Amino acid sequence: MKILVLGGDGYLGWPTALHLSRRGHDVGVVDNFARRHYDLEMGVDSLVPVSTLHHRIRMWREVSGLSIASFIGDLTDAGFVTRTVEAFRPEAVVHFAEQRSAPYSMIDQKHAVYTQVNNLVGTLNLLYAIADVDPSIHLVKLGTMGEYGTPNIDIEEGFIEITHRGRTDLLPYPKQPGSFYHLSKVHDSHNIQFACRIWGLRSTDLNQGIVYGQETDETVLHPDLATRFDYDGVFGTVLNRFCVQAVVGHPLTVYGKGGQTRGMLDIRDTLACVELAVDNPPASGEYRVFNQFTESFSIEQLARMVIEAYPGPAEISRIDDNPRVEKEDHYYRAAHTKLLDLGLVPHLLNQGTISSLLSVADRHRDRVDPAAIRPTVNWRKTASALVTASPTEEEAADSIDA
Amino acid sequence: MKILVLGGDGYLGWPTALHLSRRGHDVGVVDNFARRHYDLEMGVDSLVPVSTLHHRIRMWREVSGLSIASFIGDLTDAGFVTRTVEAFRPEAVVHFAEQRSAPYSMIDQKHAVYTQVNNLVGTLNLLYAIADVDPSIHLVKLGTMGEYGTPNIDIEEGFIEITHRGRTDLLPYPKQPGSFYHLSKVHDSHNIQFACRIWGLRSTDLNQGIVYGQETDETVLHPDLATRFDYDGVFGTVLNRFCVQAVVGHPLTVYGKGGQTRGMLDIRDTLACVELAVDNPPASGEYRVFNQFTESFSIEQLARMVIEAYPGPAEISRIDDNPRVEKEDHYYRAAHTKLLDLGLVPHLLNQGTISSLLSVADRHRDRVDPAAIRPTVNWRKTASALVTASPTEEEAADSIDA
Repeated sequence: MKILVLGGDGYLGWPTALHLSRRGHDVGVVDNFARRHYDLEMGVDSLVPVSTLHHRIRMWREVSGLSIASFIGDLTDAGFVTRTVEAFRPEAVVHFAEQRSAPYSMIDQKHAVYTQVNNLVGTLNLLYAIADVDPSIHLVKLGTMGEYGTPNIDIEEGFIEITHRGRTDLLPYPKQPGSFYHLSKVHDSHNIQFACRIWGLRSTDLNQGIVYGQETDETVLHPDLATRFDYDGVFGTVLNRFCVQAVVGHPLTVYGKGGQTRGMLDIRDTLACVELAVDNPPASGEYRVFNQFTESFSIEQLARMVIEAYPGPAEISRIDDNPRVEKEDHYYRAAHTKLLDLGLVPHLLNQGTISSLLSVADRHRDRVDPAAIRPTVNWRKTASALVTASPTEEEAADSIDA
Repeated sequence: MKILVLGGDGYLGWPTALHLSRRGHDVGVVDNFARRHYDLEMGVDSLVPVSTLHHRIRMWREVSGLSIASFIGDLTDAGFVTRTVEAFRPEAVVHFAEQRSAPYSMIDQKHAVYTQVNNLVGTLNLLYAIADVDPSIHLVKLGTMGEYGTPNIDIEEGFIEITHRGRTDLLPYPKQPGSFYHLSKVHDSHNIQFACRIWGLRSTDLNQGIVYGQETDETVLHPDLATRFDYDGVFGTVLNRFCVQAVVGHPLTVYGKGGQTRGMLDIRDTLACVELAVDNPPASGEYRVFNQFTESFSIEQLARMVIEAYPGPAEISRIDDNPRVEKEDHYYRAAHTKLLDLGLVPHLLNQGTISSLLSVADRHRDRVDPAAIRPTVNWRKTASALVTASPTEEEAADSIDA
């Protein structure tokens, strides 16, 4: 199958492209390198060194004998999107190409507006391009479990049957997202559902949990095929961050009570889920939602699991002043049966997985910038000082003392 | 009270500004004249001639002795928004300043993207400005009943209590909007609710029905105070259009089966509702939704009421090929008690109201452009020919024949 992976230079886009390529699909990647730009802006970097896209594509050909086409451009450029879809003529488009950090979207007005405009306009342009070029193209769109927030009832997969005053309807599940980034995904979901309705497009919206892990069956074939590993306060995800903190002897920072519970999954399951979605497309006009995660954990639980797996000493440091506005102790139960029904066999989180993450962190411990880990974006403020890797005054003073 | 009316040069913004001014409030208006620009783009015009904003403000001072401040600029310019809020220091902001036509948003990719970016970014900038300058400012935001779509259960006011698998929560009412314009309002609603949660802002989201009418107690004081009357296929609302069609002897065009049912209200009730919202602000951090309409009618019912009220002959012409994608025969029952509870006394739709609309249309019948009435935007197509007042080929041929 011809598959276009948007955001194919990113943390998940790149390993997804490799995985689909290895499975025999004809893969093209699209990227504008926005993710690498954010690193430059924040003064941070992936813990694991990441080669350029062009180099990685060459290495993949050397290692596997398989070709991946690349299209460099921006989805907010409608002409570029249509030309790319016309040139590659994909049967499926896997869309990772959005600004995906909640803290980044909460830095200030400029970053909130950037996140929503970038994500919405890119997806709108894509919907128009698919409708114009070939409405049968299957759009596999990455959404997030964060679209639902933390309601006091069970979360269903995209839709919920509501009986109200004696009448019943199946309606979109109510959304309570927790950042301008998460809001952008909710906006996308509504736009995509509408496009399916009016133009007969077909789309799978993957409401993904928090992904952990860095190695996949394909990326381990050569060091130059590695994908990103983010641990910083803006783009780092929680389990990666805890592993890095343990390795460098920094307490594991738990915001608030630590009862915040989220759906999570192994990076290898992301690839498997995308593949299952691609292999089993919905009908024409159908908009379907899969909740893409395998287990739920509280932040506190994750910290304790890392401490248990880490061979050295490690401890939790509680940051009472939670930089986010979120419930710290809440009900959480979310359906996630549709991908299992399609055949997903999850990699569950165990000591082995955490040990392998710890060893990735350990191999690159000399690249860790401790200043990058602390949270610098506060949900309650309308403007945060831009996150940089430069030392705080206190750290600078320490360094003078030393 | 100091009140800033955004979009104060528009159909509802202008009469709202006058009404609040006459009620003793200190009113400022903000506009970028986008609405007049759309007319130039489409080659259409308000049936009733509309003076410039500056002239109308001068006339209002002559007629009433009251001053209205004006701020000319674009809400997508964050600096302008913050400076305006800082300069005027309103206690309430009434926000009409969005692209408000569903067909306009459905013309093509450019107009869809314009509508969503314009509406979202303007509102985001406003939220940031309020949070920065004074979080106690009450944001009265115009939403639309079209955010809900036409579910098979009763529509509630913004939130619905859902009991699911033995647990209960009060959640945002599921949204099923029917155009990229309506979607932009859904996106706004989510963004505003979030801003109230994280920054403690206070907001009333007025989910307004379709407004009819053109004269208010203030605009009738002088012809130069008149507000717009739109009857064209893109910006015209249904009852206005039917009245113009009756007056010029054109059949009343009903799309599809005509069973499409919508909440509606008199323009004078819009002013009363906004005033009630402003006079009764929500608590800090509260996001509340009022369904702002007084009666529901099907399109067919409205056409029959106009035919009954019109003294001459008039008939319905059914356009089987509905240009919109919408249910043409559906359940519709929506709560609208919150504004009544605050004291709204509605002007219900009767023969008198329709007769007064017919007489507005009749006074300006020489300004009617029949070519502007027909629907030119089709929901099923990704690109519609731009609506213009130039004759169709058929009409041009007719004119040669004559």
